[in-house]
Amino acid sequence: MKAKIEHYFDKLFPINRSLTGNGNRETLKILSEIIDLAITEVPSGTPCFDWTVPAEWNVKEAWIKDSNGNKIIDFSKNNLHLLGYSEPFHGKISFKELKPHLYTLPDQPDLIPYLTSYYKRRWGFCLTHNQFLQLDQNETYEVFIDSSLDTNGSMTIGEAIIKGKTEEEILFSTNICHPSLANNELSGSLVSAFIYNKLKEQKELKYTYRFLFIPETIGSIYTLSVKGEHWRKNLKAGFVITCVGDNNKFTYKRSRMGNSLPDRVVETILKQTEEAYNIIDFFPSGSDERQYCSPGFNLPVGALMRTMYGQYPEYHTSGDNKEYISFEAMEKSVLKYLEIIELIEKNEKYINTMPYGEPQLGKRGLYPTLGSQKKNYGFVIKIIRWILNMADGENDLITISEKSKIDIKDLLPVINKLIEKGILK
Amino acid sequence: MKAKIEHYFDKLFPINRSLTGNGNRETLKILSEIIDLAITEVPSGTPCFDWTVPAEWNVKEAWIKDSNGNKIIDFSKNNLHLLGYSEPFHGKISFKELKPHLYTLPDQPDLIPYLTSYYKRRWGFCLTHNQFLQLDQNETYEVFIDSSLDTNGSMTIGEAIIKGKTEEEILFSTNICHPSLANNELSGSLVSAFIYNKLKEQKELKYTYRFLFIPETIGSIYTLSVKGEHWRKNLKAGFVITCVGDNNKFTYKRSRMGNSLPDRVVETILKQTEEAYNIIDFFPSGSDERQYCSPGFNLPVGALMRTMYGQYPEYHTSGDNKEYISFEAMEKSVLKYLEIIELIEKNEKYINTMPYGEPQLGKRGLYPTLGSQKKNYGFVIKIIRWILNMADGENDLITISEKSKIDIKDLLPVINKLIEKGILK
Amino acid sequence: MKAKIEHYFDKLFPINRSLTGNGNRETLKILSEIIDLAITEVPSGTPCFDWTVPAEWNVKEAWIKDSNGNKIIDFSKNNLHLLGYSEPFHGKISFKELKPHLYTLPDQPDLIPYLTSYYKRRWGFCLTHNQFLQLDQNETYEVFIDSSLDTNGSMTIGEAIIKGKTEEEILFSTNICHPSLANNELSGSLVSAFIYNKLKEQKELKYTYRFLFIPETIGSIYTLSVKGEHWRKNLKAGFVITCVGDNNKFTYKRSRMGNSLPDRVVETILKQTEEAYNIIDFFPSGSDERQYCSPGFNLPVGALMRTMYGQYPEYHTSGDNKEYISFEAMEKSVLKYLEIIELIEKNEKYINTMPYGEPQLGKRGLYPTLGSQKKNYGFVIKIIRWILNMADGENDLITISEKSKIDIKDLLPVINKLIEKGILK
Repeated sequence: MKAKIEHYFDKLFPINRSLTGNGNRETLKILSEIIDLAITEVPSGTPCFDWTVPAEWNVKEAWIKDSNGNKIIDFSKNNLHLLGYSEPFHGKISFKELKPHLYTLPDQPDLIPYLTSYYKRRWGFCLTHNQFLQLDQNETYEVFIDSSLDTNGSMTIGEAIIKGKTEEEILFSTNICHPSLANNELSGSLVSAFIYNKLKEQKELKYTYRFLFIPETIGSIYTLSVKGEHWRKNLKAGFVITCVGDNNKFTYKRSRMGNSLPDRVVETILKQTEEAYNIIDFFPSGSDERQYCSPGFNLPVGALMRTMYGQYPEYHTSGDNKEYISFEAMEKSVLKYLEIIELIEKNEKYINTMPYGEPQLGKRGLYPTLGSQKKNYGFVIKIIRWILNMADGENDLITISEKSKIDIKDLLPVINKLIEKGILK
Repeated sequence: MKAKIEHYFDKLFPINRSLTGNGNRETLKILSEIIDLAITEVPSGTPCFDWTVPAEWNVKEAWIKDSNGNKIIDFSKNNLHLLGYSEPFHGKISFKELKPHLYTLPDQPDLIPYLTSYYKRRWGFCLTHNQFLQLDQNETYEVFIDSSLDTNGSMTIGEAIIKGKTEEEILFSTNICHPSLANNELSGSLVSAFIYNKLKEQKELKYTYRFLFIPETIGSIYTLSVKGEHWRKNLKAGFVITCVGDNNKFTYKRSRMGNSLPDRVVETILKQTEEAYNIIDFFPSGSDERQYCSPGFNLPVGALMRTMYGQYPEYHTSGDNKEYISFEAMEKSVLKYLEIIELIEKNEKYINTMPYGEPQLGKRGLYPTLGSQKKNYGFVIKIIRWILNMADGENDLITISEKSKIDIKDLLPVINKLIEKGILK
Repeated sequence: MKAKIEHYFDKLFPINRSLTGNGNRETLKILSEIIDLAITEVPSGTPCFDWTVPAEWNVKEAWIKDSNGNKIIDFSKNNLHLLGYSEPFHGKISFKELKPHLYTLPDQPDLIPYLTSYYKRRWGFCLTHNQFLQLDQNETYEVFIDSSLDTNGSMTIGEAIIKGKTEEEILFSTNICHPSLANNELSGSLVSAFIYNKLKEQKELKYTYRFLFIPETIGSIYTLSVKGEHWRKNLKAGFVITCVGDNNKFTYKRSRMGNSLPDRVVETILKQTEEAYNIIDFFPSGSDERQYCSPGFNLPVGALMRTMYGQYPEYHTSGDNKEYISFEAMEKSVLKYLEIIELIEKNEKYINTMPYGEPQLGKRGLYPTLGSQKKNYGFVIKIIRWILNMADGENDLITISEKSKIDIKDLLPVINKLIEKGILK
């Protein structure tokens, strides 16, 4: 899987993505080779709650030339050079006139910042601070931005669904609005697509799984305007998949509720399978979880990341590139999400069908016939007894694991055996 | 304020106060220069629950003379010398006869103890242990106590009310029964009066504020017999104001409920404004809080003190005098109570009027238009998001402050701004 | 009591006990000298939930002889030598044929293990590993087991009841199925019998007390099949009395509920009377508590032990003998259970009959008449105030003790005094 992820990363990384535009369409088309995406075009101007879908932005070329005609800044070399949603411009201007349109990071002088101006018309260029320092203050520059802002355009979103036995739903939501940025956020799209790819192979899923590929904020607000009521009734667990590409330990940001199903499942899995990890309480900044967890919806949506957005120096700069990420880590992120899905599927409130005293395990071949042995009767007997004792229809599998201090991976095969023997349902 | 407090302290300190009597009337008259007190005379013999208002006690003079006619103990020099509620007496008696009527503190030989005998008829004198040791055991003493116990008298109480928009009430209760004692309890009366004095200036108070000046125990039990039912319905928070004059850190004794509104408000304010303070669980000894928190009423009444009664060596002795207290500390006690009142007034369960996703802050001038900036968007944006996310009608301001870890003083101006913008109510 | 316990220990220890059989009958007959036992014979084959009462097992003799006719293993010397429920056998067999029927403890080579085969027909002998090593591998052995397994037999159980004012019940359950084993489990039967013996002397018990002497597992499952519904309605607290004979600190294993009446009572008593003790959460292995706490019943049953089963090296071996136990410790176990019973009886939700403000304690002779004394008014006044303040019909005695941090032994006499004065009920 690692190599396949890298292959698609290389294809997708150079594309210019934003809230809208052809780059997003192309991104979803390439992802469709991995995941069965249905594409929706939402017209610019569509109202959703307090917001409106913006005009569609496309860029043909964008550069700054010095008076010798040398392109000193060029969008075609790195799409981060252009301020996102820059309006068209062409003209020759002095350094003094140009300067307010230039954005740099003085503290990280080798990196290009990532900036956007979605809701106020501006134009601008982002460059390294070292590039900026080399500019001739007496020079006259030619600036050309061949962009378009089309109010008759649309916002493109992708969606894939795996139907389960019930309408109850598990959501995976990721963003497609970041241009050439690796961890935040191409990793999210790739991990989401490969989770789908693996999950599709499984039979008899209990829940219905929805995978969303949307631009940040406006994408989730639009989708909430359409699906919010459905989710309020049917969403069992949701995950914002973001920053899952680096090689550091997992970080889980809880849902606003703080003890919802995704919170309990992820914390159980991380505790039982990882040596080190971070758990962070919900806070209303960050990515789309703050829309899903807005008080009018308050959905059970958390975010399992590796290093969290804003917590690594390369965040939202040209340093968030292929070197920063690890394809092995991305594969492990996919597998961790699959473990989470397995527990979500199996986290029933089981019922002991013989709850009055213990069933006689011996006659069912579940117990050694030589009693009173001094040494413990073995781990399996202990697991059987815990499951049967707790299976009163009130305790779910996670609670049984917590109270018994027995890992999910040890409980699951015994649960299956007891179901087979008719003692558990 | 400090100087005014000292001015009134000096006027009030020498007056002989007790459960009843002219000293209490004079005290309330002087306090009326600061606070608009309504005076009630409750007739001696008035029944209240298990108790009866006692006879009115007044003292003209009281002394012990030696056989040379020298006054060796004199009530006019320090009213602590006379056992509170001493019955009248005149006679010449031997040292042996006098001795059982003398009270001293052998462990603090320079201090006069403060003692009373309200509900059993006695007479007695309190003196320093050093004075006691100098008495001639072969001497005959003349004892004169010109006191009266009038069963047709009354108990005097003072009350002031600031009407708010609702009948829901905040209570401040303090004691006027201590004679020349500074921290416990003249500080309580002074701090209460000055809280009123400052609060009176405020417009548009939500709650109605009641200030009570009563003798300890019988005063609160009488008032409960009259107002208890009203308070059970309307009292939102109450405070016994006692021991607020010394210069040490604040001590808050919780109400019996342990998590009532005054408990939550005071603990929030102390945590966010004081470096060091004590929180003590309710216990059924102490001052009038044990009446307000008796199980039949169980009112939300706590006590914000500085050093608690019984916890300083000068407590209930002549050492609890002007030297022990600080007028600067008393002013700060007034201001701390005013901060508490401010939070009580503002501790609403606010409602986000646009709870579906986030409102678009940018178009309301609440958000920088240049998105995706690497550095945090500033503290105000963080505060806005926390308030909007938590404002679901379930979380009050204190809960928002706890969950967001943002201080009340930082939340309040933003709340006002969001209300003004129509996003919050 | 210590000497009496030892006297009965010596009589009971050598008897061969099992799930069924004459040894159990004889044991109950001897115990009847201490406790008024009613004996029930439950026919073999009686169904109870998933189980069936087994055939009755009796043994006349059982031995292994070498070819010289020397008895090298003899049941009459130690009944642990015979595998419990061994079927009859007589024959001469080689060492190789004998070996699979021999059980030893290689890690504790001087001890005979205790083993049974209740639900699968087998025969076998238990011996020390050192004995085993001395066996001649070329020898032919004569094996004789004169046992009987009578499907027309019965299981014998003993029961004693002390009627209280209500049908609400306190249960003490102990096992009679262990042969010559001292701590686990002769100590349980002896301690149970002496608790009864002492408790019988008390008048006016509120609760009805039931003492059960049963074989482990099948005995409690059978009794649940008969009494389970009754207990579901009436059982207030139950205790499995096991491993109470050694001289180490107490261990309490909580009921499945974790905060049931026996849990709260035992933890309060241990905390207030013992310097060191262990509290263990419920787990579904161990003794009959796992039947009483099976999910279909979930009764409030815990187990107060000393060193828990399985936690001492002599457990289920011939090392669990008179040397391992202490009769002084057993007497103290009896007394500790009696303290527990006292608290169960007194753990009411008391009601202050004068809940509005404090009652005037002075006029009832409960308060010093000289008020405002600097030193604390004494411990009794503090206790009175705590009780009156907490006695609102919601807090039981244990809660009052927890909140006031006053021990039960200090609260009880004051509660009695307040009831006598009519202030409490």
